[in-house]
Amino acid sequence: YDLTVVEGALVGRVNGLAVMGSDSGSVLPIMAEVTPTQGATGQVIATGLLKEIAQESIKNVSAIIKNFTGKDIRNMDVHVQFLGTYNGVEGDSASVTVATAIISAIENIPVRQDVAMTGSLSVRGNVLPIGGVTYKIEAAAKAGIKKVIIPQSNLDDVVIEERYAKMVEIVPVTTIEEVLEHALVFERKEDFIAKIKEMSSRRAKAFADKPAPKPVSV
Amino acid sequence: YDLTVVEGALVGRVNGLAVMGSDSGSVLPIMAEVTPTQGATGQVIATGLLKEIAQESIKNVSAIIKNFTGKDIRNMDVHVQFLGTYNGVEGDSASVTVATAIISAIENIPVRQDVAMTGSLSVRGNVLPIGGVTYKIEAAAKAGIKKVIIPQSNLDDVVIEERYAKMVEIVPVTTIEEVLEHALVFERKEDFIAKIKEMSSRRAKAFADKPAPKPVSV
Amino acid sequence: YDLTVVEGALVGRVNGLAVMGSDSGSVLPIMAEVTPTQGATGQVIATGLLKEIAQESIKNVSAIIKNFTGKDIRNMDVHVQFLGTYNGVEGDSASVTVATAIISAIENIPVRQDVAMTGSLSVRGNVLPIGGVTYKIEAAAKAGIKKVIIPQSNLDDVVIEERYAKMVEIVPVTTIEEVLEHALVFERKEDFIAKIKEMSSRRAKAFADKPAPKPVSV
Amino acid sequence: YDLTVVEGALVGRVNGLAVMGSDSGSVLPIMAEVTPTQGATGQVIATGLLKEIAQESIKNVSAIIKNFTGKDIRNMDVHVQFLGTYNGVEGDSASVTVATAIISAIENIPVRQDVAMTGSLSVRGNVLPIGGVTYKIEAAAKAGIKKVIIPQSNLDDVVIEERYAKMVEIVPVTTIEEVLEHALVFERKEDFIAKIKEMSSRRAKAFADKPAPKPVSV
Amino acid sequence: YDLTVVEGALVGRVNGLAVMGSDSGSVLPIMAEVTPTQGATGQVIATGLLKEIAQESIKNVSAIIKNFTGKDIRNMDVHVQFLGTYNGVEGDSASVTVATAIISAIENIPVRQDVAMTGSLSVRGNVLPIGGVTYKIEAAAKAGIKKVIIPQSNLDDVVIEERYAKMVEIVPVTTIEEVLEHALVFERKEDFIAKIKEMSSRRAKAFADKPAPKPVSV
Amino acid sequence: YDLTVVEGALVGRVNGLAVMGSDSGSVLPIMAEVTPTQGATGQVIATGLLKEIAQESIKNVSAIIKNFTGKDIRNMDVHVQFLGTYNGVEGDSASVTVATAIISAIENIPVRQDVAMTGSLSVRGNVLPIGGVTYKIEAAAKAGIKKVIIPQSNLDDVVIEERYAKMVEIVPVTTIEEVLEHALVFERKEDFIAKIKEMSSRRAKAFADKPAPKPVSV
Ligand SMILES: [Ca+2]
Ligand SMILES: [Ca+2]
Ligand SMILES: [Ca+2]
Ligand SMILES: [Ca+2]
Ligand SMILES: [Ca+2]
Ligand SMILES: [Ca+2]
Ligand SMILES: [Ca+2]
Ligand SMILES: [Ca+2]
Ligand SMILES: [Ca+2]
Ligand SMILES: [Ca+2]
Ligand SMILES: [Ca+2]
Ligand SMILES: [Ca+2]
Repeated sequence: YDLTVVEGALVGRVNGLAVMGSDSGSVLPIMAEVTPTQGATGQVIATGLLKEIAQESIKNVSAIIKNFTGKDIRNMDVHVQFLGTYNGVEGDSASVTVATAIISAIENIPVRQDVAMTGSLSVRGNVLPIGGVTYKIEAAAKAGIKKVIIPQSNLDDVVIEERYAKMVEIVPVTTIEEVLEHALVFERKEDFIAKIKEMSSRRAKAFADKPAPKPVSV
Repeated sequence: YDLTVVEGALVGRVNGLAVMGSDSGSVLPIMAEVTPTQGATGQVIATGLLKEIAQESIKNVSAIIKNFTGKDIRNMDVHVQFLGTYNGVEGDSASVTVATAIISAIENIPVRQDVAMTGSLSVRGNVLPIGGVTYKIEAAAKAGIKKVIIPQSNLDDVVIEERYAKMVEIVPVTTIEEVLEHALVFERKEDFIAKIKEMSSRRAKAFADKPAPKPVSV
Repeated sequence: YDLTVVEGALVGRVNGLAVMGSDSGSVLPIMAEVTPTQGATGQVIATGLLKEIAQESIKNVSAIIKNFTGKDIRNMDVHVQFLGTYNGVEGDSASVTVATAIISAIENIPVRQDVAMTGSLSVRGNVLPIGGVTYKIEAAAKAGIKKVIIPQSNLDDVVIEERYAKMVEIVPVTTIEEVLEHALVFERKEDFIAKIKEMSSRRAKAFADKPAPKPVSV
Repeated sequence: YDLTVVEGALVGRVNGLAVMGSDSGSVLPIMAEVTPTQGATGQVIATGLLKEIAQESIKNVSAIIKNFTGKDIRNMDVHVQFLGTYNGVEGDSASVTVATAIISAIENIPVRQDVAMTGSLSVRGNVLPIGGVTYKIEAAAKAGIKKVIIPQSNLDDVVIEERYAKMVEIVPVTTIEEVLEHALVFERKEDFIAKIKEMSSRRAKAFADKPAPKPVSV
Repeated sequence: YDLTVVEGALVGRVNGLAVMGSDSGSVLPIMAEVTPTQGATGQVIATGLLKEIAQESIKNVSAIIKNFTGKDIRNMDVHVQFLGTYNGVEGDSASVTVATAIISAIENIPVRQDVAMTGSLSVRGNVLPIGGVTYKIEAAAKAGIKKVIIPQSNLDDVVIEERYAKMVEIVPVTTIEEVLEHALVFERKEDFIAKIKEMSSRRAKAFADKPAPKPVSV
Repeated sequence: YDLTVVEGALVGRVNGLAVMGSDSGSVLPIMAEVTPTQGATGQVIATGLLKEIAQESIKNVSAIIKNFTGKDIRNMDVHVQFLGTYNGVEGDSASVTVATAIISAIENIPVRQDVAMTGSLSVRGNVLPIGGVTYKIEAAAKAGIKKVIIPQSNLDDVVIEERYAKMVEIVPVTTIEEVLEHALVFERKEDFIAKIKEMSSRRAKAFADKPAPKPVSV
């Protein structure tokens, strides 16, 4: 098993993107697996020497997961593994990567390995801006990635060289649902739409943000 | 998703106010989401590198939440996320913001995004004074906020420049109920009053402070 | 809401007394609230940057609470909040204040706000001596308090100036029941006695110290 | 309530003995109370700034308590309070004092206040030797104590001045049952014996050490 | 019991491989045992002074174990013991060794003691590359081991002297199933295949990665 | 109660052996007691200032205990007390001593006090080598011990002076069952064998290592 996989599709494995120092990007694969819990109730268990902000980002992702799927998460342990991060990981820009890996593992839907992604998540599913977006895109291009998902709010920060621009497609997104649309693999388009709808159903019910209500004076 | 939102209305998102150093205010958005719990019982999970007083303020807010809603909080996890606070957060002046975000998420009622707020909460729902109120109001004004909710007891501390005074309305309050009246969005006024009454009912039952009983000599 | 309240009566709020440095007293209000628990079982949650001895004093108070009331504390969270103690609190002299605030909140009986108190508690309800009694009494007098409850065993330590002595009544006590008699507000005297008896009933059953049994030689 | 009590009998209060520095003894009162538990199951909660060895001695005492009484300890919290130890407590020589206070509180049997005691406990009820026995006995005598219980194995270490020797009776013991015989107050001798038997019954059943079996060669 | 065992077959014992400093390999035996749990639910308990990455590797292995066996792991404690590591253990290259020892203990299938192994595990059962592979192989050869299992992705890193090359067979693998095929002992080949299938069944069901689905454009 | 006991037989008490510094042995008695649990489930509680390796050795012993006895350990707390170790204990060479004391307490079978022992335990019951065996044997001899149980794998390390060699019998062992055969006291030989068989039965069932199966080529 080589740590670098940039083609085909795999369940529970997603290519994330990291910055080392201030100007060097790299592909950071993340794997997830779900298991029956050994404890009284389920938990999310993340490894890879996550530091404080990274650990908190896992908690934020868990809010998405708990709302996303209709399966009973009380009997489920969710394992998340950052591969090869022996010097630790800090930051929250892998949130979308972690969320995608977990949803892939729970729903057993493969993830495109020619896609890489970066983005922070709010507890309500918004994709929030991150740092080092240009270095990350270039690292993805060099590694053979074909498509890079980034936060819409980072689009202005992208200043990549022409040669890399030709190698990768940049996909700006604002929600985790958009991330899933671009990264997950479904055999037929209509299956895909049905599945996302099914996955979002509990979430939809929980959210149910009313469409742009007019403020009243109180 | 841009971190600055100052118009419309959103569920589970509230514009708080912070002071950096001793004289620079800023808008600090806070998001909340509720999910079915993965653990044996529900918990409040707050992220954003909260330091000691800020963590304790979350505990105080939880007293309000547990009394406010009639829903069974034992099966509910409450996620609270301070957005973008990568250098940590200290203090308890975001208590009203956190409480409002959570109640919005639980009750699925949108919050006005042109409103910002600051204030500490007692475990019984009183809004207690905070620091830096002038800097906070000016920062809100600059960001495009139209209305700033502050503790009544801080009213004397407000010394803002004329140009900012024209931009924002200042709303002094003494209880969390007043905060909700100004920040939550209801389509019709009567709905609003019914909802607040319903939300407060458990709390009312728990409180039931007798109106000004005469002391007896004992 | 002003942190200083010295008249009327409120549920779950008690004026405690503190010493800062070695010779400066102040009024330290403490609030309590009870809520349905979100966890598997109830707990006592105290905020205000309590240091080690202060945290232990909360545990000692919890022994009193668990014996005092007949209500099922397993479904109840008890929140205790020291107001405005942003530099931390050390010592156990607020034990009677905490106990009074909690019992007021649980039983929904108002506390006289013109009363302030200081005293450590044993796990069996004895009021134990504390430090700085003179400074505390003077601070209470200056703040407008009319009656100060102190441990009987501290009576010899009281050396206050004539002008303060005229302003406040000093009430020495030996048990938490005496504290409650002086601080809680009942509409009618007979109601009061009935209520205290009812509150103490479980405790009485648990205690049941035999009246002065003669030692036997063994 | 005065911290020094050396006459009469009280439930849940026992005069222990401590050494400060290397040559100064003092009377160290310990109180215990039992309450219905607020948690899922019972626990022993000890306060008084206990350091590491002292905390472990509480665990050892809990082994005795769990075997001693037939009552259901799963629904019971046991509170132990070292009075006035604001500078911390180290060592295990208060084990017999703690055990006696707890058994008194659980069984509601008064303890003689003219008795003081020192001794470490094994998890099987043996009274083990302690340090500073002479200083402790002299401190007890000075405080007005009439009888001091010490470990049998410390008897050789006792070298007290004649004047103190006249003031107190020294009682060497080898088991916690002997401690209880000397410290607890029963109205009638036969009641006492019955009670101790009843208290020891579960323990007796658990122990049931066979009388001096001959070793077999294996 | 000698720590070095290189022949025969034993349940719950596997020869791992370690590197000390940067250039000295050694055989590191690991034992596992399963027991009924004493706690409310099962847990994995690992000893041998495991440091941070090593502790996380145990968590990753637990993901494999929870998916691998159909037995109810909620009533089972899994004990893992690194033998003789009194100076601590760091790294994740013993993951395959730990997983093999646990599966042997749970399924009661002996492990070949003339086999040694090294390799990190992903939470989905992939064998990931490790460091010091050459030193480890040489140490195994010197100790009398006949077969060394290593990650396929480390094959290029193997540069061993001729004399050691003759002593041991090197077996590159990519999944934990392959490790088990080479290390576990079954009396008959068909039993083996049935057993692995049975062991993998729950896992297979959980995994069910679809064979190379074609990406759709979304 | 004298800490040194070297004759007769006692339930739950075993003479262990320790090394202080690098060349001075001593007898280290260990006591165990079992009680009904006060918590939700049983636990092993060890005191005596155990450091990291010593604490892990207690976990390893617990694997043996959970498999050894057929009694329901979920309702049982197991207390282990190292006597007199006020400066802390490090190392795992008391594992056999702890296991023997616990099994004696659970099964209510006396332990010979003229026997001392040293040895580390694997989680599967093997007795593993320890350090300082010669100093330990000499200390045992000086204290009046008649028989010393040591790991078989330490036999070569024993180099004791002639005069001590005459005083004690050295018994090398490889499993915890052998330790029990030499240390526990049964009134009749046949009872002993029946009891060990009964004690080992659950364990036997769990182990059931097949007798030397031939490896198959896979
Ligand atoms: Ca932008
Ligand atoms: Ca929601
Ligand atoms: Ca004011
Ligand atoms: Ca209330
Ligand atoms: Ca009682
Ligand atoms: Ca002696
Ligand atoms: Ca016993
Ligand atoms: Ca390679
Ligand atoms: Ca799976
Ligand atoms: Ca040897
Ligand atoms: Ca032998
Ligand atoms: Ca087994």
